[in-house]
Amino acid sequence: MNAAPPSGYVRALAQRAREAAAAIAALDGAGRRALVETMAARIEAGHDAILAANAEDLARARAAGLGAALLDRLLLDPARVAALAQALREVAAQPDPLAGATRRETRPNGLVVERRRVPLGLVAMIYEARPNVTADAAALCLKAGNAVLLRGGSEARASNAAIAACLHAALRAHALPEAAVALVADPAREHVLELLQLSDLVDLAIPRGGEGLIRFVAEHARVPVIKHYKGVCHLYVDRAADLGKALDLLVDGKASRPGVCNALETLLVHRGIAAAFLPRALAALRGRGVEVRGCARTRALDAEVKPASEADYAAEFLDLILAVRVVDDLDEALAHIARHGSDHTEVIATEDPAAAEAFVRGTRSSAVMVNASSRFNDGGQLGLGAEIGISTTRLHAYGPMGAESLTIERFVVRGEGQVRHPELLGAKR
Amino acid sequence: MNAAPPSGYVRALAQRAREAAAAIAALDGAGRRALVETMAARIEAGHDAILAANAEDLARARAAGLGAALLDRLLLDPARVAALAQALREVAAQPDPLAGATRRETRPNGLVVERRRVPLGLVAMIYEARPNVTADAAALCLKAGNAVLLRGGSEARASNAAIAACLHAALRAHALPEAAVALVADPAREHVLELLQLSDLVDLAIPRGGEGLIRFVAEHARVPVIKHYKGVCHLYVDRAADLGKALDLLVDGKASRPGVCNALETLLVHRGIAAAFLPRALAALRGRGVEVRGCARTRALDAEVKPASEADYAAEFLDLILAVRVVDDLDEALAHIARHGSDHTEVIATEDPAAAEAFVRGTRSSAVMVNASSRFNDGGQLGLGAEIGISTTRLHAYGPMGAESLTIERFVVRGEGQVRHPELLGAKR
Repeated sequence: MNAAPPSGYVRALAQRAREAAAAIAALDGAGRRALVETMAARIEAGHDAILAANAEDLARARAAGLGAALLDRLLLDPARVAALAQALREVAAQPDPLAGATRRETRPNGLVVERRRVPLGLVAMIYEARPNVTADAAALCLKAGNAVLLRGGSEARASNAAIAACLHAALRAHALPEAAVALVADPAREHVLELLQLSDLVDLAIPRGGEGLIRFVAEHARVPVIKHYKGVCHLYVDRAADLGKALDLLVDGKASRPGVCNALETLLVHRGIAAAFLPRALAALRGRGVEVRGCARTRALDAEVKPASEADYAAEFLDLILAVRVVDDLDEALAHIARHGSDHTEVIATEDPAAAEAFVRGTRSSAVMVNASSRFNDGGQLGLGAEIGISTTRLHAYGPMGAESLTIERFVVRGEGQVRHPELLGAKR
Repeated sequence: MNAAPPSGYVRALAQRAREAAAAIAALDGAGRRALVETMAARIEAGHDAILAANAEDLARARAAGLGAALLDRLLLDPARVAALAQALREVAAQPDPLAGATRRETRPNGLVVERRRVPLGLVAMIYEARPNVTADAAALCLKAGNAVLLRGGSEARASNAAIAACLHAALRAHALPEAAVALVADPAREHVLELLQLSDLVDLAIPRGGEGLIRFVAEHARVPVIKHYKGVCHLYVDRAADLGKALDLLVDGKASRPGVCNALETLLVHRGIAAAFLPRALAALRGRGVEVRGCARTRALDAEVKPASEADYAAEFLDLILAVRVVDDLDEALAHIARHGSDHTEVIATEDPAAAEAFVRGTRSSAVMVNASSRFNDGGQLGLGAEIGISTTRLHAYGPMGAESLTIERFVVRGEGQVRHPELLGAKR
């Protein structure tokens, strides 16, 4: 890594944020709830300023020739600002992730061993276009007693600054240090490199964005990173599937929002049901503009299907494209997923409990769905209130991460003077 | 990092271990328990071969002029081999960390959302002299359904190979692949570098040893690492302490085994009780050969105490040396710990519940003890059965790590065909 020497700008921000973290950690659950509610109210009150800043970002993005998909991610409108505030209210209303002991045990020597959740400390978010992440990430981090260091995409810098100003106003209203929500305002890329080296200050970095961003962060980080590379999600339609349900899961999974990570990318169909299911499935997909790329057995059923390459089975299309394969049985489906999957979400459609259980046990993804859409792998949908990201690595958190994933269990032990080696005491006292 | 290009030796081992992990993960709880019990039995059966190999390591270590402390860590004798087998039996007897659902919730749309623990996959242990880690780490990893890649210190290579041979015999006896316990037999250091780059194969690396080893691993790792730097553990004797208990905690914490990470390094005493406590404490410590280095107020009470430097308050002595400081109050004790602590273990001796609670809340260490010895921060003592290490970083695990810390929760969702956007279905089916 031959980057320029760090300027110290991010280190100074992180240092102040880490000091401010103690003030957030010292709040009780009611205090953190009230703080996040005030954040929501200040976002609403800052509505006009946020939209004005966003218009500035959009104008610059259009001038720079950004594509329609990026512009849509960047766009805030009155409904989206209202949704932003609403999301914060939902985070505020979640149970306190730090409340009480999670476990308690009395040891044979009388020690009472509790585990209690504590905040991680300082969480760094590194993200791309969507300005809503600025508010969501800050709310989740503060709800869990952490400070947050935010480094959003340069294309959203005015929007992010306007949102951060609302969050700072909320902190001030509660007599808390603004530094607890630290925004890296200067878009220079070397600041990301500097941030990723701050292993004495940053407890966790969460990159959120395209695969290129994630790989850049993973490559350069000295701080711990929770990664989410991509979502190559599979739907396996078992021989014992209810075909109506399977069709619903397919259409919802592929066509309801193809650009997101929990959308389906590959359909696997048991050969015993392929002739009954695939013609209906292909017609429904075509009716929604989905391009299908299939194996030889799929194409034997429908000559219009294009041939799928090996690369198609590993692709996260993020588009109205679906790879299809007819498999001999559940084992072949599992082997396909093991080879091509991304540990994100897998779905089985089946009415056979044994097949469902074999699929659950045979996949290792962060979420496995039996007769439910892949689109449910989402913090809000699974009951976490909101999510700061979805982890596809098996460390600390796996799957959607809510406020609880921004905490860690410690040990609190209470005794009455117990020692480990009583036989060594006494004589010399 | 200008290391030689990787030889591929460790990659090949890790590849086979990762494949073998599937066979371990496929076992049920009874199968994993039986496997670890067989590992214990094979260690006992291999008693003579293990001692012969250890004699070889000891002879080489003596010839190389290793110090007494290192030789003691390296040494196996009949009692230690028996203890090794016993530790494995205790791991076997622990509750299955993968059993059942850890949480279950029904969402308003009828989805049943469960969380279930799954193995991490492939865990790499990088450790120094103690050959017992070879057996302990393998047992904990397999108990939790993982495969393990072991890279022990070169000074213990014959002992580690002999122990691994017993573990392989146990795997064979259960018709499981030996590759699930992979030993890096070649002691060349570039193999550690190669291992640390295998981010596609290794789910977690745990270094265990001196601070130099941990820093080397943290510096070079592309795989996730759980770190444990050092244990600078504090005992704070509050104004409201029971002095007899406090004395027991002090002597046990400092003198029962000074070379371990959960031994005390610093004593903080409330000034209101210093005159009553310190003379007794200093006499007891001297009677056990402990050198005391104190602040001016300590030295005013006892002129024989040497002056403590700032460095003494940050030191992990791992020896019969103790730093002592008289503090004005609990807040000053907390500030001292925040400045000098290592997030390992802190102890308060007090009969005042409010002081105890303030100390618990005011410290962030992995374990906090109220009227109990720091020496209890240990997986076996806290009820985990055994430990693969103690994490002092707030990610994934914090404090002693047992088999459960080698697993991760995933989401298992059961529905009846629910989709996220039912409004989009129907018309085009």
